[in-house]
Amino acid sequence: MQEASDKLRGERKTIGFVPTMGYIHEGHLSLIDISNQNADITVASLFVNPTQFGPGEDYKKYPRDIERDKRLLEKRGCSILFEPDADTMYSKYFRTEVYVRNLCRLLCGETRKMHFKGVTTVVSKLFNIVKPDIAVFGQKDAQQAIIIKRMVEDLNYDLKIILGAIVREKDGLAMSSRNIYLNKKERRDAVVIYRSLKEAEQMIENGERGVLKILRLMRKVISEKKSARLDYIKAVDTNGLKPVSKIRGEVLIAVACYFGKTRLIDNIIVNPLNI
Amino acid sequence: MQEASDKLRGERKTIGFVPTMGYIHEGHLSLIDISNQNADITVASLFVNPTQFGPGEDYKKYPRDIERDKRLLEKRGCSILFEPDADTMYSKYFRTEVYVRNLCRLLCGETRKMHFKGVTTVVSKLFNIVKPDIAVFGQKDAQQAIIIKRMVEDLNYDLKIILGAIVREKDGLAMSSRNIYLNKKERRDAVVIYRSLKEAEQMIENGERGVLKILRLMRKVISEKKSARLDYIKAVDTNGLKPVSKIRGEVLIAVACYFGKTRLIDNIIVNPLNI
Repeated sequence: MQEASDKLRGERKTIGFVPTMGYIHEGHLSLIDISNQNADITVASLFVNPTQFGPGEDYKKYPRDIERDKRLLEKRGCSILFEPDADTMYSKYFRTEVYVRNLCRLLCGETRKMHFKGVTTVVSKLFNIVKPDIAVFGQKDAQQAIIIKRMVEDLNYDLKIILGAIVREKDGLAMSSRNIYLNKKERRDAVVIYRSLKEAEQMIENGERGVLKILRLMRKVISEKKSARLDYIKAVDTNGLKPVSKIRGEVLIAVACYFGKTRLIDNIIVNPLNI
Repeated sequence: MQEASDKLRGERKTIGFVPTMGYIHEGHLSLIDISNQNADITVASLFVNPTQFGPGEDYKKYPRDIERDKRLLEKRGCSILFEPDADTMYSKYFRTEVYVRNLCRLLCGETRKMHFKGVTTVVSKLFNIVKPDIAVFGQKDAQQAIIIKRMVEDLNYDLKIILGAIVREKDGLAMSSRNIYLNKKERRDAVVIYRSLKEAEQMIENGERGVLKILRLMRKVISEKKSARLDYIKAVDTNGLKPVSKIRGEVLIAVACYFGKTRLIDNIIVNPLNI
């Protein structure tokens, strides 16, 4: 992969990169589009990274369908697929960690303690392997994107991070490889996350700025579905991920919620200055 | 710097990199030679990195003489000097750490707890800024070189680490920017570190393989100087830095010793298979 990247760079071609864990859906493919709009060649990686799953999480059962992934990515204009195996990525001597202090411990990091350290470490490796000019991440994993932006700036990676908008099913559920875990009832109920976010957005558009009030309504909307078990709802600033009490400037409203055993996340970024 | 490196790479020139904290001596300059022998263009960095100094260590008084450094480096064939300031390297939002587990805590890491985390983080930044094909480190800081090799392999940096031999004063003292801290008596006494290492080497050449016996002699040699206060003497394997009891294969014998307030380090790498 490094040789291929050097060759492309030698030909003055810019490289766009879309890292994925596979089980490609329209969300991923929209990132391929963004990459193609911003770079000459798009590289996607397909790697279910073991180190970002905690004990008891779904590493083993994470859905995989490589042949289908290849077809979809190629059809959408991805030129190079980087698909390493775990033993190549992590030798038995492996002991290096890339870690973004504070940001890793908040929101999803409160329950998934090692998750973001696994993400930043593998993304750091992938950047060194793919050597992209731009890398595209989905806003669906907003905390991940914010952490990686921080890492890129701090470690002086010579590349630009672009954020892709969340792609949703017709009823509003954010696309995710994990949606396949949901049974029919859970799938129907899961739309409540999006509905709660839309309600929040509406309140803010109507002039509400108090976070307590907004989150209270969101909790009420979600609690109407018995299969929903909330992990967190938070409104935080988009730099430091610190909770805010008033909606001023740019705020990330993020939800993590279980339906059965499946943990789903979703978010909106609001900015009353842009209304 | 990134633009300059991209330009050189575009011209198919290879980049050699010698990171330094300045106060250049013949040890650094020997690394410039090695870089020039292995790459088309040599870049040196000159940055006294605050994050690798602990509280109470010598960050503030670390010797600096930039004009002299520039002259010496240029004369020796260094084409580009990268000399950032600390505020540029570490913005107020900085919170990313690169960390090599276990290796960071051993030897010098036992007393200098945060030192190697500071080193791996800044070297990771410098690699992303300078984008070298090779980087040259001195064996004087053997643990540092071993940790950085581990980091390069683990994070897939596309570059080769080359180790430069220790350069010594006429009486055997390893060259170091910190030697300037020594008063006359300390300077004379400090040669005892090298003498102890030579005695160890001699014993091994004569067939001795027992580490206890070798280190006992070394301690005896060093203790003859009253100004010497030993931090550690250890014989460890050169991959995992784990103590060995017998000299088999490649072994690092490393010493850290205070003379007055000045902490000096030195080492030899022995391999009975090569005798």
